[in-house]
Amino acid sequence: MNKEFNLRLVLRVMSSLALVESVLLLFVCLIPLIYGESDAHYFFISSLISLAFSGLTYFLGRNPSPSIGKREGSVIVTFTWIIFSLIGLLPFWLSGSIPSFTNAFFETISGFTTTGASILNNIEELSHGMLFWRSLTHWVGGLGIIVISLAILPVFSTSGTQLFGAETTGPTKDKIHPKINETAKRLFLIYVILTTAETILLLFGGMNLFDAVNHSFATIATGGFSTKQASIGYWDSAYIQYIISIFMILSGINFSLYYFGFKNKFQKIKENEELKYYIIVLFSFVIIVALSMIDFSKPFSFPVVEKAWRDSMFTVSSLMTTTGFCTVDYMYWKPLTWVILLIVMLTGASAGSTSGGIKMIRIVISGKACYYEFKRLIHPNAIIPIRYNGHLVREDILTRVLAFTLLYLVIAGFGILVLAMSGMGFMESIGGMITCLGGVGPGLGMVGPAGNFHDIPEFSKWFLSLMMLTGRLELYTVLLLFTPAFWKR
Amino acid sequence: MNKEFNLRLVLRVMSSLALVESVLLLFVCLIPLIYGESDAHYFFISSLISLAFSGLTYFLGRNPSPSIGKREGSVIVTFTWIIFSLIGLLPFWLSGSIPSFTNAFFETISGFTTTGASILNNIEELSHGMLFWRSLTHWVGGLGIIVISLAILPVFSTSGTQLFGAETTGPTKDKIHPKINETAKRLFLIYVILTTAETILLLFGGMNLFDAVNHSFATIATGGFSTKQASIGYWDSAYIQYIISIFMILSGINFSLYYFGFKNKFQKIKENEELKYYIIVLFSFVIIVALSMIDFSKPFSFPVVEKAWRDSMFTVSSLMTTTGFCTVDYMYWKPLTWVILLIVMLTGASAGSTSGGIKMIRIVISGKACYYEFKRLIHPNAIIPIRYNGHLVREDILTRVLAFTLLYLVIAGFGILVLAMSGMGFMESIGGMITCLGGVGPGLGMVGPAGNFHDIPEFSKWFLSLMMLTGRLELYTVLLLFTPAFWKR
Repeated sequence: MNKEFNLRLVLRVMSSLALVESVLLLFVCLIPLIYGESDAHYFFISSLISLAFSGLTYFLGRNPSPSIGKREGSVIVTFTWIIFSLIGLLPFWLSGSIPSFTNAFFETISGFTTTGASILNNIEELSHGMLFWRSLTHWVGGLGIIVISLAILPVFSTSGTQLFGAETTGPTKDKIHPKINETAKRLFLIYVILTTAETILLLFGGMNLFDAVNHSFATIATGGFSTKQASIGYWDSAYIQYIISIFMILSGINFSLYYFGFKNKFQKIKENEELKYYIIVLFSFVIIVALSMIDFSKPFSFPVVEKAWRDSMFTVSSLMTTTGFCTVDYMYWKPLTWVILLIVMLTGASAGSTSGGIKMIRIVISGKACYYEFKRLIHPNAIIPIRYNGHLVREDILTRVLAFTLLYLVIAGFGILVLAMSGMGFMESIGGMITCLGGVGPGLGMVGPAGNFHDIPEFSKWFLSLMMLTGRLELYTVLLLFTPAFWKR
Repeated sequence: MNKEFNLRLVLRVMSSLALVESVLLLFVCLIPLIYGESDAHYFFISSLISLAFSGLTYFLGRNPSPSIGKREGSVIVTFTWIIFSLIGLLPFWLSGSIPSFTNAFFETISGFTTTGASILNNIEELSHGMLFWRSLTHWVGGLGIIVISLAILPVFSTSGTQLFGAETTGPTKDKIHPKINETAKRLFLIYVILTTAETILLLFGGMNLFDAVNHSFATIATGGFSTKQASIGYWDSAYIQYIISIFMILSGINFSLYYFGFKNKFQKIKENEELKYYIIVLFSFVIIVALSMIDFSKPFSFPVVEKAWRDSMFTVSSLMTTTGFCTVDYMYWKPLTWVILLIVMLTGASAGSTSGGIKMIRIVISGKACYYEFKRLIHPNAIIPIRYNGHLVREDILTRVLAFTLLYLVIAGFGILVLAMSGMGFMESIGGMITCLGGVGPGLGMVGPAGNFHDIPEFSKWFLSLMMLTGRLELYTVLLLFTPAFWKR
């Protein structure tokens, strides 16, 4: 019984999720109505299609057995993102805003995975409704990943948490609440508070409500879709740029720490090594990049130093939190900057946040493992335990974290190879792969901040879509589906 | 007693090694005499300086206690390469063949570490003596690394073998001979046989004796210094190119396997997983690169296919074995090729060979660790052991191998950052770092096969010299010297 794949349950879950998307699309119909635009019907039709899909899967998945295993879990999580993207692309595609199906899928999955890599050559051409839906995919995707990683998985048995790998070794020792519903509610609240706070602060900076909401959606989800082709560079306002920088950095923090903060458990925050190293690494690179931009042969002036600091802080935090907003085209900066940006795109920010990448927790533990190798070489007979947040890290957990980090780098290398094979350039392959796997957005060269993914080969778009999903779901969730042994018995 | 650093013993060993170099330099005096060139005295003076150094250190290191620990071992190994390079640069520097001290040091340590990265803009300008000495540094350095890793370290206790990390888990289970002297003699014999065989085969191809010997030195040591500016591209002979390809591939095999071959222990060779994967990976990439060079829109012809195969086989095996000979400028190939070449420069060939890089044994074990993570996720309660050559790999060895592989990649990333900071370009930083850490030779862009390291900043030359040594001595040997804890007590 337990061994057979529980397709009905999977369909039943899909049905509920499609219902959610149907409601979301219906809600977006309001935007064209408010702005007097004539494309409300595309959202309405998409909503109906989503509803029909929900009904169909509800019918096909009737009377499911309640048993859920690892296979069902992997399939549900992966297909949630795929189905959401397939339905979510409908408004763009039906309305002709994005005429190519491939491009529409790329843009939508880039939204739901909170990547923010775009194929749009002229973002301002899109209607308010389309832009809002585009930003909403970020917000929903970001919320989804927070709820899955902090509320759903920790409740499952070890087998469940293993799917998401290492971050569960840290934060989930301090579960927010044993009940999924309760935890999800609290996380949702934090998510809404952060979004609202940023929106209000952006309004103070002179941004209009529409742009403020859209950019807050994209910031908190560490997505990176902007309503402007020039991204945040459109606003020549230091205030707006600092506000967004700060909220990007805040969005890269493990959300359970906010909960502890609200509960006055500041000790837990102070003890958190991931947070500490995240801030240290982030600002070290901000300083290096800022220094690299200052011309020391000229006399110092405050505006020059402030501009360098602001551009550096914005760009480094944007790429490290895997948001992908831009204020300047860093392809005009020194190659040193590109290397730093590639490094932070690989590391990403904290586990349990909306950011992508390897995640600081794994970087910290891997770093400690390398460091302790030295200690072991010096004292071969001493047993030197590795500690994280004061807890011992078991040898098998250590192997798992190292294997994940290495697997991430191997997949990045493999992907660069595939992209280069598909005909993309050297810089474009490196930048494109690392940015999509990490869920960042802009890459290097033609797919850099001034460019986009419009002109890359069709095959590369599908491949990068898969990589965005693989990175977003922490590699194993998606890769397991391609493992024959996973389906045996 | 045992805790105090045994400087006298270190000096005594240095004295013997300087004596060896003095003899080598004296021997090289013959070359200018044979070719009627007037620079024999530079070698003679260098030989005398080396002899004086030998005498001085012999005197300073009189009556050493015989105790040798890890610190002495690390210092001896690291300083062997440094002292050899400092003395070895004298002929180049004194004669003005390489007027800059930095350049002379870079060229010489590049020789002794069997890297083959050059700062020479016009190789043919050098006298026969200088060219021969340059190739000899390769040959001596390669022999040194083989003897250290296969004869000396396995005899030391675990603490000694740990210095060289993972490769000792595999091959050294099958020690060639318990006595250092005996093993070293046998390895020397294999080394000489391979060199002689290649020399003879190159003579058959029409190469003159001088070039044949020099190129054999550089091939067997997987060094890559040529006597021609155009490297092997100088000889437009398919025969010569194939011969060198084959000997590069042979030089990338663990030398203890040759010994087993001579002893008719073919079972051990057949069981060797590192050899299997080395050949599989090598030829997979040869095929991909060859295919990428063929224009499928044109009708097939044997010469076109043969040329593509030959160029691909030569280049991939040159870079994977970390030799660095060139027949064509791969910067004119597709970016796909550059990605592949960077990958094989990182992997390197086999442990216990003269090649550099991470080494296939670690790649294989790391790959298995990643693969077994999937199995563990699927069967969380099953104990799944990782096997290598039929032996179980203990969990702590696994952690060590993963940590090494990751550390290698981290150092590569860190070095790319440092090079970019020093003002080198994006491609040059990536290519330069990976090629020097792996002991390959040519990088990408300006430091690619058509260029050299002449015009990179002074600081970068010293940094890359250190990286060549660090990579050659398997990271820990050199890095430990910079670890304060290593020097405590």
